[in-house]
Amino acid sequence: MSSGTDAPTELHPQLAADCHVLGRVDGDLLLLQRNAAVPWFVLVPAAGAVDASLDFHELPAASRRRLCDTADRLAIFVKRHFMCDKINLAALGNVVPQFHLHVIGRRRDDACWPRPVWGHLPPGSTWSTAQLDGLVAALRAARCLE
Amino acid sequence: MSSGTDAPTELHPQLAADCHVLGRVDGDLLLLQRNAAVPWFVLVPAAGAVDASLDFHELPAASRRRLCDTADRLAIFVKRHFMCDKINLAALGNVVPQFHLHVIGRRRDDACWPRPVWGHLPPGSTWSTAQLDGLVAALRAARCLE
Repeated sequence: MSSGTDAPTELHPQLAADCHVLGRVDGDLLLLQRNAAVPWFVLVPAAGAVDASLDFHELPAASRRRLCDTADRLAIFVKRHFMCDKINLAALGNVVPQFHLHVIGRRRDDACWPRPVWGHLPPGSTWSTAQLDGLVAALRAARCLE
Repeated sequence: MSSGTDAPTELHPQLAADCHVLGRVDGDLLLLQRNAAVPWFVLVPAAGAVDASLDFHELPAASRRRLCDTADRLAIFVKRHFMCDKINLAALGNVVPQFHLHVIGRRRDDACWPRPVWGHLPPGSTWSTAQLDGLVAALRAARCLE
């Protein structure tokens, strides 16, 4: 893994408000949505500045490859760790211009199945400190976090 | 480009009902949502069987690489051809188990901006035969269709 020195120095205020910052992976930032109704991770590459409004194909090729590799490991981890039925993978960016890739574990019994999470997740569910600590340890063991 | 002989032989009935089949690109199928409110393309890889319910990371590596390459070309084309502000890229699959990748052009003045298209697109807008013919020609010129 890289030293992470090329991780984004600035995070869009909306991402910071919505997510826990879990740490870095290969220089990119790994976030977790504060709403714990589903395991909803967000990858923010170093290449995506706060207001750049880049789409996936506009990121540098090295950044895209790294994101794909990380998203693959993360998807495998999420599906197994949370016993999910599906992974929802998406780069939208209509609201928050800083590039971010959603990696979301979905279960047939989750709070808004089969609808997409955006705008449909009931509020209120949160991650406890113990849950976050356990998750960080498991993510590190799965090489999804430095 | 490949001869397309490894294109999926069977399309999920929901995809067939919702989309025009434009043709093949490098063996994968390129579909276009019948609702013309936004330019909403769908790539269906040969590797994804109708009921397989595979996630992106579970597709064969060669299929993933090919899908990424095609999605890049398609995103560039869609953004330029339809003068879009953003590309929404997503693999969800909560409803239709056959793997399919959404490549959707979004504009700040489109029918459901900034919400995601799923469940928010007003019905009724359709592509004319002339529009479809012109689009197919433009997609071929941009190497997004065989």
